[in-house]
Amino acid sequence: MPSSFETLRWRDGAIEMLDQRALPERQVYLSFDSAAAVAGAIRDMVVRGAPAIGCAAAYGVAVEAKRISGETRAQFENSMDAAFETLKASRPTAVNLFWALERMKTRLQASSSTTVPDSASALLDEAHVMCREDVTLNRRMGVHGAALLPERSRVLTHCNAGALATAGHGTALGVIRSAIEAGKHVAVYADETRPFIQGAPLTAWELQQDRIPVTLIADNAAGFLMSRGNIDAVIVGADRVAANGDVANKIGTYQVAVMAHRHGIPFYVACPLSTIDLAIASGADIPIEERAAEEVLGYREMRWAPVGTDVVNPVFDVTPAELVTALITEEGVVRAPDREKIAALFRSRTTT
Amino acid sequence: MPSSFETLRWRDGAIEMLDQRALPERQVYLSFDSAAAVAGAIRDMVVRGAPAIGCAAAYGVAVEAKRISGETRAQFENSMDAAFETLKASRPTAVNLFWALERMKTRLQASSSTTVPDSASALLDEAHVMCREDVTLNRRMGVHGAALLPERSRVLTHCNAGALATAGHGTALGVIRSAIEAGKHVAVYADETRPFIQGAPLTAWELQQDRIPVTLIADNAAGFLMSRGNIDAVIVGADRVAANGDVANKIGTYQVAVMAHRHGIPFYVACPLSTIDLAIASGADIPIEERAAEEVLGYREMRWAPVGTDVVNPVFDVTPAELVTALITEEGVVRAPDREKIAALFRSRTTT
Repeated sequence: MPSSFETLRWRDGAIEMLDQRALPERQVYLSFDSAAAVAGAIRDMVVRGAPAIGCAAAYGVAVEAKRISGETRAQFENSMDAAFETLKASRPTAVNLFWALERMKTRLQASSSTTVPDSASALLDEAHVMCREDVTLNRRMGVHGAALLPERSRVLTHCNAGALATAGHGTALGVIRSAIEAGKHVAVYADETRPFIQGAPLTAWELQQDRIPVTLIADNAAGFLMSRGNIDAVIVGADRVAANGDVANKIGTYQVAVMAHRHGIPFYVACPLSTIDLAIASGADIPIEERAAEEVLGYREMRWAPVGTDVVNPVFDVTPAELVTALITEEGVVRAPDREKIAALFRSRTTT
Repeated sequence: MPSSFETLRWRDGAIEMLDQRALPERQVYLSFDSAAAVAGAIRDMVVRGAPAIGCAAAYGVAVEAKRISGETRAQFENSMDAAFETLKASRPTAVNLFWALERMKTRLQASSSTTVPDSASALLDEAHVMCREDVTLNRRMGVHGAALLPERSRVLTHCNAGALATAGHGTALGVIRSAIEAGKHVAVYADETRPFIQGAPLTAWELQQDRIPVTLIADNAAGFLMSRGNIDAVIVGADRVAANGDVANKIGTYQVAVMAHRHGIPFYVACPLSTIDLAIASGADIPIEERAAEEVLGYREMRWAPVGTDVVNPVFDVTPAELVTALITEEGVVRAPDREKIAALFRSRTTT
């Protein structure tokens, strides 16, 4: 059951991205041919979701390398250093961004004895591989996670950790897709996820494309539905997971986790190993991005708050590991995650 | 410090209400001259907030009585019965609506031996008295509640329990106004309160009118701010409080209460006795209104969810008494409310 749309695609020597800001009204692909343009697209949320940001950044490196492949080796290396910095500065919280850039940098260094065009070609190959790998590992994560869901289940999700947040299949929504492929009956409740409202135009849209039942709710209604026994499980994605299992994800995730805990509802986090940052000891050390006040004062071009209203707009929060029933990774499920179990997962992984 | 606007006012023989749907852009008063028109205004949320709905309903009775005061006594009584039913059906959750209608019905019955015009006049007097009483008791509630706040405090509120939700001063925001009048330094964090977004155009607007510092946040950010130590107390209003202290209030209140409990932050509910429904044993028996899907699919004329998206839109939830640090009433503060303490409060009250 491949999704009926592509989040990112390579076309005519440039990276194209589905403009997620135009959904659900229009399905438009925008084309980017430089690292600066891709960094702008990440910053402006043409593309969002930690794994998709990682893929976009990889293509940002590749497209930049292609663009400047007429330069001398020394010029090229300097320009690429600047491109890496530009892409790195696009968003602060998603670790996949840094992970993807590190991997591209390693590939660049490995190709340093070849011609510049060969380096550019190697970087494009690497970006393609990373995106294919992302889909593959989402499918592996999906199989592991699907086993956790009952035959019939009503699953709450927050934000969009779907095909739109990855190169395909999705993380949290990938688990749901895999469960449905395995014959389970899953109905989704989607938090609308203010302020950016990923739930309505992204999660509801993407599930409808694949004919998966979805009911949209205000973020405020999640606890009420839990109290009425309407939610069997929660699955969310992650932007960064600390070495101890603390999870940074879209603002409001923490509240959902606390409510699930209160109601004895399992709270699952679908996260590829690339999202787990062993260099970060705990959630307290994860930088939390603040975005513009405009996002809270209204939505897109509409403004409903009084002029001059003060706003704070943190867009991620940290869910402590104690509230996480299990991490779902491509290497398997880690129940009640902690530092030791996560370290063991990395030691035993079958892929690198 | 009277507020610089009026939520309801009697002008030229009709009841005028500030059209809260037009805020913050325009400060427009709409005029209503029949019970059906007032019921429509309540249903369509020209006016909202349990105490203000009660006052509006009282004026709805008064304006109807005036409109049909040329009828015979028998016709008049029949028409008024119908008017009471129409007003009663306007909103299901706010108990003040039913309380206000009962009180007007009692006044009508007490005037049954007079002329119809005299009855109409008595009903208008009663509506005026009820609105003045509402302001008075909000001020008494404010004094009791203000004593609970530290000299410097950052107070989170949800929805709008302000002057705009009452005949004046407000319940939750009345406590904040009274604390400021008493020389305390209070800064407010206002949840935006999806789906109707009372937080931005109402709470932020009304506090700005009175130059009270307010910072608007997405509902999803409340738990994060608590986890960072940025909130000293929560104060909300109530639409209906059960005899055991369970509180029905705007959807999302329950989540705020759970988060406050987790972080050891006091959670206060400002509620006049008219909001406490002794006939309801517990929150499980409080009917919860569901409103139209459109409220979640977008906002006002804007639509951002895909066409045909399923929605559930409960607009109130129930916070169990165990999460309520104290009820703040005009008769005093009830800490850790339960059935016995609430019954005692009613027995000892100084006004009826």
